[in-house]
Amino acid sequence: MTDQSVFPDPTYRDTVLAPLFEGVKAHYAGHMGAINRAHLVMLAETGILPAGEADAIARALREIETETDIDALTYTGEFEDYFFLVEAELKRRLGDLGGALHTARSRNDMDHTLFKLALRDRVAVLLKQALTLTEALIAKAEAEKATLIVAYTHGQPAQPTTWGHYLGAVIEVLLRDIARLNAAADGLEHCPMGAAAITTSGFPIDRARMADLLGFSGPLVNSYGCIASVDYVTGLYSAMKLMFLHLGRVIQDMQFWTAFEVGQLYVPNSLVQISSIMPQKRNPVPIEHLRHLASATVGQCDAIVNVMHNTPFTDMNDSEGEVQQLGYAAFDRGARVLQLLTALIPACRVNVDRVRRTTDSACITITELADTLVRDEGLSFRAAHEVAAATAKAVIAEGAALGDGFAPFRSAFAAQTGRETGLSEEQFRTAVAPETFVARRDRTGGPAEAAMSEALGQYSATAQAARAVCAERKNRHETAQQRLNTAFDALLVKD
Amino acid sequence: MTDQSVFPDPTYRDTVLAPLFEGVKAHYAGHMGAINRAHLVMLAETGILPAGEADAIARALREIETETDIDALTYTGEFEDYFFLVEAELKRRLGDLGGALHTARSRNDMDHTLFKLALRDRVAVLLKQALTLTEALIAKAEAEKATLIVAYTHGQPAQPTTWGHYLGAVIEVLLRDIARLNAAADGLEHCPMGAAAITTSGFPIDRARMADLLGFSGPLVNSYGCIASVDYVTGLYSAMKLMFLHLGRVIQDMQFWTAFEVGQLYVPNSLVQISSIMPQKRNPVPIEHLRHLASATVGQCDAIVNVMHNTPFTDMNDSEGEVQQLGYAAFDRGARVLQLLTALIPACRVNVDRVRRTTDSACITITELADTLVRDEGLSFRAAHEVAAATAKAVIAEGAALGDGFAPFRSAFAAQTGRETGLSEEQFRTAVAPETFVARRDRTGGPAEAAMSEALGQYSATAQAARAVCAERKNRHETAQQRLNTAFDALLVKD
Amino acid sequence: MTDQSVFPDPTYRDTVLAPLFEGVKAHYAGHMGAINRAHLVMLAETGILPAGEADAIARALREIETETDIDALTYTGEFEDYFFLVEAELKRRLGDLGGALHTARSRNDMDHTLFKLALRDRVAVLLKQALTLTEALIAKAEAEKATLIVAYTHGQPAQPTTWGHYLGAVIEVLLRDIARLNAAADGLEHCPMGAAAITTSGFPIDRARMADLLGFSGPLVNSYGCIASVDYVTGLYSAMKLMFLHLGRVIQDMQFWTAFEVGQLYVPNSLVQISSIMPQKRNPVPIEHLRHLASATVGQCDAIVNVMHNTPFTDMNDSEGEVQQLGYAAFDRGARVLQLLTALIPACRVNVDRVRRTTDSACITITELADTLVRDEGLSFRAAHEVAAATAKAVIAEGAALGDGFAPFRSAFAAQTGRETGLSEEQFRTAVAPETFVARRDRTGGPAEAAMSEALGQYSATAQAARAVCAERKNRHETAQQRLNTAFDALLVKD
Amino acid sequence: MTDQSVFPDPTYRDTVLAPLFEGVKAHYAGHMGAINRAHLVMLAETGILPAGEADAIARALREIETETDIDALTYTGEFEDYFFLVEAELKRRLGDLGGALHTARSRNDMDHTLFKLALRDRVAVLLKQALTLTEALIAKAEAEKATLIVAYTHGQPAQPTTWGHYLGAVIEVLLRDIARLNAAADGLEHCPMGAAAITTSGFPIDRARMADLLGFSGPLVNSYGCIASVDYVTGLYSAMKLMFLHLGRVIQDMQFWTAFEVGQLYVPNSLVQISSIMPQKRNPVPIEHLRHLASATVGQCDAIVNVMHNTPFTDMNDSEGEVQQLGYAAFDRGARVLQLLTALIPACRVNVDRVRRTTDSACITITELADTLVRDEGLSFRAAHEVAAATAKAVIAEGAALGDGFAPFRSAFAAQTGRETGLSEEQFRTAVAPETFVARRDRTGGPAEAAMSEALGQYSATAQAARAVCAERKNRHETAQQRLNTAFDALLVKD
Repeated sequence: MTDQSVFPDPTYRDTVLAPLFEGVKAHYAGHMGAINRAHLVMLAETGILPAGEADAIARALREIETETDIDALTYTGEFEDYFFLVEAELKRRLGDLGGALHTARSRNDMDHTLFKLALRDRVAVLLKQALTLTEALIAKAEAEKATLIVAYTHGQPAQPTTWGHYLGAVIEVLLRDIARLNAAADGLEHCPMGAAAITTSGFPIDRARMADLLGFSGPLVNSYGCIASVDYVTGLYSAMKLMFLHLGRVIQDMQFWTAFEVGQLYVPNSLVQISSIMPQKRNPVPIEHLRHLASATVGQCDAIVNVMHNTPFTDMNDSEGEVQQLGYAAFDRGARVLQLLTALIPACRVNVDRVRRTTDSACITITELADTLVRDEGLSFRAAHEVAAATAKAVIAEGAALGDGFAPFRSAFAAQTGRETGLSEEQFRTAVAPETFVARRDRTGGPAEAAMSEALGQYSATAQAARAVCAERKNRHETAQQRLNTAFDALLVKD
Repeated sequence: MTDQSVFPDPTYRDTVLAPLFEGVKAHYAGHMGAINRAHLVMLAETGILPAGEADAIARALREIETETDIDALTYTGEFEDYFFLVEAELKRRLGDLGGALHTARSRNDMDHTLFKLALRDRVAVLLKQALTLTEALIAKAEAEKATLIVAYTHGQPAQPTTWGHYLGAVIEVLLRDIARLNAAADGLEHCPMGAAAITTSGFPIDRARMADLLGFSGPLVNSYGCIASVDYVTGLYSAMKLMFLHLGRVIQDMQFWTAFEVGQLYVPNSLVQISSIMPQKRNPVPIEHLRHLASATVGQCDAIVNVMHNTPFTDMNDSEGEVQQLGYAAFDRGARVLQLLTALIPACRVNVDRVRRTTDSACITITELADTLVRDEGLSFRAAHEVAAATAKAVIAEGAALGDGFAPFRSAFAAQTGRETGLSEEQFRTAVAPETFVARRDRTGGPAEAAMSEALGQYSATAQAARAVCAERKNRHETAQQRLNTAFDALLVKD
Repeated sequence: MTDQSVFPDPTYRDTVLAPLFEGVKAHYAGHMGAINRAHLVMLAETGILPAGEADAIARALREIETETDIDALTYTGEFEDYFFLVEAELKRRLGDLGGALHTARSRNDMDHTLFKLALRDRVAVLLKQALTLTEALIAKAEAEKATLIVAYTHGQPAQPTTWGHYLGAVIEVLLRDIARLNAAADGLEHCPMGAAAITTSGFPIDRARMADLLGFSGPLVNSYGCIASVDYVTGLYSAMKLMFLHLGRVIQDMQFWTAFEVGQLYVPNSLVQISSIMPQKRNPVPIEHLRHLASATVGQCDAIVNVMHNTPFTDMNDSEGEVQQLGYAAFDRGARVLQLLTALIPACRVNVDRVRRTTDSACITITELADTLVRDEGLSFRAAHEVAAATAKAVIAEGAALGDGFAPFRSAFAAQTGRETGLSEEQFRTAVAPETFVARRDRTGGPAEAAMSEALGQYSATAQAARAVCAERKNRHETAQQRLNTAFDALLVKD
Repeated sequence: MTDQSVFPDPTYRDTVLAPLFEGVKAHYAGHMGAINRAHLVMLAETGILPAGEADAIARALREIETETDIDALTYTGEFEDYFFLVEAELKRRLGDLGGALHTARSRNDMDHTLFKLALRDRVAVLLKQALTLTEALIAKAEAEKATLIVAYTHGQPAQPTTWGHYLGAVIEVLLRDIARLNAAADGLEHCPMGAAAITTSGFPIDRARMADLLGFSGPLVNSYGCIASVDYVTGLYSAMKLMFLHLGRVIQDMQFWTAFEVGQLYVPNSLVQISSIMPQKRNPVPIEHLRHLASATVGQCDAIVNVMHNTPFTDMNDSEGEVQQLGYAAFDRGARVLQLLTALIPACRVNVDRVRRTTDSACITITELADTLVRDEGLSFRAAHEVAAATAKAVIAEGAALGDGFAPFRSAFAAQTGRETGLSEEQFRTAVAPETFVARRDRTGGPAEAAMSEALGQYSATAQAARAVCAERKNRHETAQQRLNTAFDALLVKD
């Protein structure tokens, strides 16, 4: 067919190529430099490129890097993208030899390597922020391990526990979220380089060396998979989504606990928007903002994952630049959630009066009275239950606290059993005190002091282990960078 | 509780307030000015503010607008947000009176009014882009209404039709998507102003006038709903999602039609990325980019809608600034899809040779031969089917086109019926020609010339009607702007 | 290639064909009968089939229908599906003629017609349930239009309003959801029959007559679109999703309002799960169940819509039997939400004491005091605000209700203005009473009696109009059914 | 408030309680029996219940189990649910003592234990099916490791590889999906029992023993988390979603490869729906069904996860019975995908002729010619590229296969270099043969024989290791069951 048209069509340039170019400038130019250097080193080391040629290319690369002000570049359409711009620069300086750097590689393996390099930095930051939050929560839980709160089920007051105990539950989920994220971060540690377009190369490349120079734990084996599989992306954003979905549930509790009528949690002035005319109206707006920030992070993670739905299993733009960058916005938003939670939760305090008031008015220690009667008075379960229920009914009718209900208790006990209770008023008061309730629950995972201390110790250990995994990864990356610099400089030294 | 902390906490400032401030600068400052002017006019007209006071405030507003370089503002935390910054400016100039502008209104009704004003501009642009695409498709369908293509079912060649006919199906869906979007756009045309914080005001405000001055079709009635309902957001993004989900299906077809082996559709050089070494490898990359751009638009629309899930039905930040702005990114991405499709589809051509080749090799007109035998030769359905099947089997075995299969047809006919066919070779050839196949299908909605012309006429009329709805809306907005300017200037003229 | 294998592979039979067969039995067999009868009538009327043949087929169809116990059929794999089973029965009785019923139609147009017929029944039921809920809410709003409640913003008490007013906001959203659903229901009213496989037919079919006999408002025009477009599905489930997403927000409020500490809403014993030992623990579990039922309905709607993502725009199983039936589960779950809400909301009552307590302790009428001072005492906004704020501060410090705060108010007024307030204690008490607050808000959409009555009148009218649209649709369906019966019987009468 | 209403309201009974009861019958009754037995054993062993009492309860439990035909139960509303029905039976037989079984436990810890028990069975089945598929793919890859196919990038033919190599990439992703699922399965292995309502119990329970008797690897520590955290659900369905999202990408390839014009993959007759009249039309419908089945599985997994969004972090029905059962449908659908893929892929064959045809016409080995000239003829990259490009252009113009292009190659070589090529026609033909292309790619992860064999060995080892993890888990569950039976019987033996 006759076709006089010339690439690129202006609309394509403006809607696709120019935005991609801006993306490369912002996110990938540095990593592309690292890949270029590593690949050159590998080509030289394997003898695919003779020493003299590698040397010349190394010099040119260094020059281009020095001379190019990447931020100042604007997309003209002259080159399809940044990659071709660099290649053109090489050819301008080196002639034919300029093309030799691209021996035994392809945009396909380079792209996914770039994306992994960019993501591993981001996930390292996110993990660090999540661990910082975790440690802040562990410290807070330690500090608040004796601070009574009302625990809810079905939205209604159910039992006393401590804020430390509640935070322990939050910490456990967060640690598992971190573990999922750490596993997903490992999914970034296999290097696609050497897959070339699809099938590796006929040249005697050294994939392990490339992986090594770029700080990966090794090559991603199947070369087709290197350019086609996207589970390093989907696995990462799925894990990330869960962290923010789960934190969102804690945020819901905070919203409820800070409601005017509930008031279990006090948010300090620095985090409350107030009304000059309504002194009672303290809007803990950060909590609200946390909700939509977490929800939006969840939604953005979903968006990335779902872009892959019903795409072919082959090298495709669906997992590349544009979509990758959409994901970075999720990291940015997620970071705000983690930072704000890290500032907010330690700054909050429990309103002890309110907790006491709800504890009393909702009679939430009553089950412990029944249990006490079984254990200490030898009542059957049914009988103990009857006495407790009658006592609760009486104190609620009087609007009294359960601890003040010795009289109705004694009557109920006598009526049920035909004898006097052996409990003194003091013993009764103690039996139904929320402090007693908590102290008695010293089984694994309970809120009592010893159980909590043991649990917090475990959490610290787990957090530390997670940090160690991150540190090891980081160390591998940094060591590799030095190794790459050394190896690259060695090419230059030769002259 | 003792609490020496002072608002805002630096983390809250950096993670929430500063980004919100930047958002207001970019998206809402102008609309806030319009609301201020309209509200002032209404306060003056209803006598809630005496003329002299309204005049002074009007002057101050005009001054502030003139003197403030909004883009140059940076968030300091001194004021909670841009609104308070303007209010502080008013008070600095007018003293007590500066607060009077806020009589009988609230951030709550203002915010949702701002969001609607910002969205209505965006949806107008999107509708325009969608209608431009529609009209380009109608023109293309007109131009290609005789261009044969292979139509597929279950991914396999099934029947001949025309490209125009196929595009007609695309156009119908797009017109329905536009109708859904137009209905959603109407959901933006009811004004929340006057709801104040929740319940309207004790002052004798005129909600209809406010709606009028801001170009809405009227007030949104229930004042609680004005600040609590979010279906103007969810309805809009749901409708928008569908447009890009549906266009994504056409994109899938284009991807298949341009596959090397299929080649039904030719994409011009200006929209193809090529390989200098593999002259056959023409990657129609815009189609691929369209897929992920459409998918990401879908995902971003979902994200907005799903943020609202399980939020309270009350004024809440979940539907406000941050989330609104997340939505604007969906508009931006969606615009790229529409623009690129508008450039791409008209530029493509059908590869007639390929269509003919597949038509022949897949024998896709064979059912029409059977139908012809029923109609013209009086055969029973079964008998006609047997003759056609035998003919198809024979030509395929020979690798011949069906049109060249008169000999096997004649034999099969004779074998089945015991008589000679009345069809001449020419009549046979005509009967199985794809042109005949198409021409015979002149029922409502079929690909034959007359049916297509009628359908295209309907599409044009529907598109025009949709444009008229948009134009009317735009006209209302523009007229209101003039009305507001006039009324505001009238306040000033008084001196 | 040599290939001795025979259809169907047992795994395919068990994982796909058998479930599909069960689905047809449960959902489509009746509708397939209607399509068969209508198509036969049309073939006879257009002369495509001679009268005698149509008569014979009609008899056979009637016989098969009478003799087949559909529920008792089990899938054997002998026939690909139920359609072929019926066709085989026809051929067994009529020989060659048995195939004639399939003239000028295809599984493709039949399938989407079946799906629309099945969906239109379901959407009619859902709309009826939604309208029943709407009307129950209108009646409840009418009954509760003077019942004070506390209205919240940012989760904190903000202003008094009435329960009727709040329900008005709910009703408005629900009416818009119904409008969206009604529009989506209209998307089911265009008949695909006559599209045949893709392109209509060479036979002189009458598409308008087919549409008419099956109760559609007309044919869906473009025949390619008839078998390829899925927006009747996606549009419907998108609209449906929104209804349950929005109701979920009201459910969140109910969960909060019924919290022990808030207690604004009283759920009767019949809808509360209680604890025999904790008399205060009344779990309003239906509200919780409503939340996950609504959420799961939302999720199921999403699942249907998203199945279509990145599918080709052509006849494909992605929009067919299996996926359609997945959607029916969303209708079933959604119905439970609507029914339970219809039972629950009218049964609830406002706890007047709790409302009064929060009104007092949160000082939520204080802004009205400031407004009163501006209007009645001629104070500037700032001065009025200062007096009100000082009054609020004083009464809260004393733990008193605002209405009892005349003394601190008088002092604050004097301190600010240097004169005595003109308000008597009674006038003051009235000014800050929540009843006054509400009564003064008689603007469009406000909670005052007249404004509410007007709004409720509008809601009733809108609901009635929506019912009328449903009734008209239903009437068309039922009239068509009679018309079809008559026309089909006319075929039989001929003998 | 006066309230004469009685639980349960009929609508609540019909829309919530009755469906829940049916769910318990179908899914949990057996597991509830196990929990009852284990709890009783633990109460006896810890001395919380005296031996005689435990004995009596054990007998009653055994009787009830024997006498109750669970399937025959219908919900009457007499008991709130199945749990209370069993408790009532116990009390009917044992009087007061009947309640003792519920000492130190709660519905809260029991429910999440039930859900984990039910899920661990399902995930074991799914993992088994996924591993069966994996092993079938490994065997197929082994069998097809020399079978050439065309590999695509951007939907266009790019390079030759082998089907075995392609399947290797699929296997790698699947193994990672299995690893993710195995990690999620571990998330089910921590026992909530002992958390009781929220905070453990004042009785000296033994949580480790309970975990042990029910086959868990240990107790889930924090007791609040036992009843509040849902990441065992969200983590599982997120992992599951990914498996089907990723398999869906392979399905997309299969759909393309089996397209009429592409025909790279041959699906046997047993899995193809055919047309009697169009012998060429072989619809590989199982592939299509796989697509929507996988998509719907994805959507159902999403639905479960998203139900948890914005729910409180506390014991709530959002993660319980109804929602759990919604998830089982995802397992059922996912199983169909895995089974059908396991039947389908091994049954397919590569159409060697078609592969050869596309290889030739798309000139996909041309890059290897250039590489050969660099390696063997010492040409510069640019020069080699020029010769190859000229050769390709010439053979394509002639419609010849590249292997037949020695003449144009020789000319191009001479023109570029000014000398004769050293390659013989045979060497040239070999150099550009797809077999050579593949054989040369013997780097890690490449398609050459040795590289593939090594990779397949790794895959088998990984699959075997994953199976071992599953087997260990299964073994723990089964051993525990025996341990529980023994311990329970020991209670009975005492009489």
